[in-house]
Amino acid sequence: RSFSVAAKQSLKIGLIPADGIGKEVIPAAKAAIIALGSDIPKPEFIDLVAGWETFTRTGVALPDETVEILRNECDCALFGSVSSPSRKVVGYSSPIVALRKKLDLYANIRPVVSVAPEVDQKPAVDLIVVRENTECLYVKEETLIDTPNGKEARASRLITERASRRIGQMAFQLANARPRKHLTIIHKSNVLSVTDGLFRETVRGIKSLPANDGKFNGVTIAEQLVDSAVYRLFREPEIFDVMVAPNLYGDIISDAAAALVGSLGLIPSINAGDNFVMGEPVHGSAPDIEGKGIANPLASIRSAALMLRHLGYTEGADRLDLAVNQVIREGRFLTPDLKGTSTTEEVLQAVLSKI
Amino acid sequence: RSFSVAAKQSLKIGLIPADGIGKEVIPAAKAAIIALGSDIPKPEFIDLVAGWETFTRTGVALPDETVEILRNECDCALFGSVSSPSRKVVGYSSPIVALRKKLDLYANIRPVVSVAPEVDQKPAVDLIVVRENTECLYVKEETLIDTPNGKEARASRLITERASRRIGQMAFQLANARPRKHLTIIHKSNVLSVTDGLFRETVRGIKSLPANDGKFNGVTIAEQLVDSAVYRLFREPEIFDVMVAPNLYGDIISDAAAALVGSLGLIPSINAGDNFVMGEPVHGSAPDIEGKGIANPLASIRSAALMLRHLGYTEGADRLDLAVNQVIREGRFLTPDLKGTSTTEEVLQAVLSKI
Ligand SMILES: CC(C)[C@H](C(=O)O)[C@@H](O)C(=O)O
Ligand SMILES: CC(C)[C@H](C(=O)O)[C@@H](O)C(=O)O
Repeated sequence: RSFSVAAKQSLKIGLIPADGIGKEVIPAAKAAIIALGSDIPKPEFIDLVAGWETFTRTGVALPDETVEILRNECDCALFGSVSSPSRKVVGYSSPIVALRKKLDLYANIRPVVSVAPEVDQKPAVDLIVVRENTECLYVKEETLIDTPNGKEARASRLITERASRRIGQMAFQLANARPRKHLTIIHKSNVLSVTDGLFRETVRGIKSLPANDGKFNGVTIAEQLVDSAVYRLFREPEIFDVMVAPNLYGDIISDAAAALVGSLGLIPSINAGDNFVMGEPVHGSAPDIEGKGIANPLASIRSAALMLRHLGYTEGADRLDLAVNQVIREGRFLTPDLKGTSTTEEVLQAVLSKI
Repeated sequence: RSFSVAAKQSLKIGLIPADGIGKEVIPAAKAAIIALGSDIPKPEFIDLVAGWETFTRTGVALPDETVEILRNECDCALFGSVSSPSRKVVGYSSPIVALRKKLDLYANIRPVVSVAPEVDQKPAVDLIVVRENTECLYVKEETLIDTPNGKEARASRLITERASRRIGQMAFQLANARPRKHLTIIHKSNVLSVTDGLFRETVRGIKSLPANDGKFNGVTIAEQLVDSAVYRLFREPEIFDVMVAPNLYGDIISDAAAALVGSLGLIPSINAGDNFVMGEPVHGSAPDIEGKGIANPLASIRSAALMLRHLGYTEGADRLDLAVNQVIREGRFLTPDLKGTSTTEEVLQAVLSKI
């Protein structure tokens, strides 16, 4: 799964804080990475811009330069969060969706794990949402026409065998590496028999691909309709291990799972392709707390860990994760989303002191 | 909202138990309606077929006769639940989706209310999901092509101003009749700016339509992206009063809300159009407990109440709801989904004894 960056002299990391609390939490992740010292190649950070603010300043939400530098000069990246305008603005469209597509980061991987009973609300949760990241309704092919009966809008939902196969392959690999080796396919093929049918059949078929040569024989497969998956996530989250889903269902499911473990402010993700990986906290730009210095930096630090793990730097990743988990368990330095009173900076210092 | 059936001599109710536990819970709802005696016009029941079993027997999941009798002879109907085949079967498609469309039952109304702290898991919930019932991805316009890179499937998502306006109108009416008068519009217009943008703008616009003549001035409007709505439903369900959503989001949101109040076996719904209303429990066909006599009949009885209320038979509806709520609060006769040990029949008898 992880592609080798071999014995590099340095690790070039693009930083795209973008909007809102992204600008508060990405610097925290940077500080945590620096604290790893020689566990990883010397990190070099490249500051890049994107987002709503960039759009209002320059008329472009995702500058070509940002994409080019990520593609040609960076080994990996960390993305913060984007604000969206409250009404449709001509020419604006989400830079994170575009970045995932332009860099072909086809897998959005979101582990949701409960750490401390005090901050969790439910029985222990330990699952990974593997979300397809390039198609479904996110192709954003929409049309609008005027008719005698008023406006009619259409959006196209694309599901391909190719994208379903590669996300399925990623999900099987992740499931196979976990103790329970259990994979749940999320779909709605009782309504969308063609598109979700293709997704389901393609993912099911991976197990018996000759190329996989029996290596996934130990993985058990289950299915859940997306509505029922959300219901069961709340009621019996322990039935899930790895969940694989088309883009929009994965978006919803990962927020549902996040609700089970304390706060969105804890949930990391990576956007992974065959040649690049970009960490991204699942929380959004949180306009309500922007600039107050109280954003939770833990999802970003965990996203950095996930990114490093994906690149093969297991020790560095473990150290970040352990430090974060200790801070959560001790409960002395927590931001308000976890019912604490600490600032972003205090939580960061607590993490740094444990690295 | 309710259309008048005036001083009818009899009330003709189509019964479509369809598959699975539908066949166990619809008879219970029938018995509860009969028990109302003179609170409603004398009920006449017409047995109708549809579903997967009907399909395997006749090759048609929704016989024309069923639709015609509902349309021409019935005042209203109760629908049970449908099983779906585990793989795509040529010629089969969900009869409930087709029925909603053929009878133009454009509003799916799903109240989720907590009754007894013992069976609920969270702070008190009292909300209504108003789901558009005829379009979105449920138009089921799908295509599949073969390409050199493998199969490619597409589905079309339709959002019209007309359908958004009438569902919005229904949602405003419901919100306006409630103490909090609060309406949350669910969408994902940060990605689907055209389709969900149209839904959002159209619903927002209803408040100031000249035809509404200021009558919704007291309704406050909020918005939530669908992913964040699911998250907040789990974390702070009390922020919601009436939620209005396009079809698929409404499907998911109503299951999410159901998870907060004990069991899907408690959640009723109606499919309402301008000339017809059909009650339908939100739970599915539950193949795992089919035929065991332990299906929870309360969602069906509540669906009957909701149907009667929509028709204007408030007293009858109140009596059914009160009886159901008493049975839940007493907690002596509950089916296994509510951690009880009673059968469908025992729960029904308990309800009948309170009507
Ligand atoms: C900001 C938005 C476009 C994005 C998405 O829908 O993918 C977000 O919700 C996420 O989950 O990363
Ligand atoms: C059975 C299925 C087609 C249906 C739907 O998706 O509408 C069900 O989930 C529901 O919520 O009524």
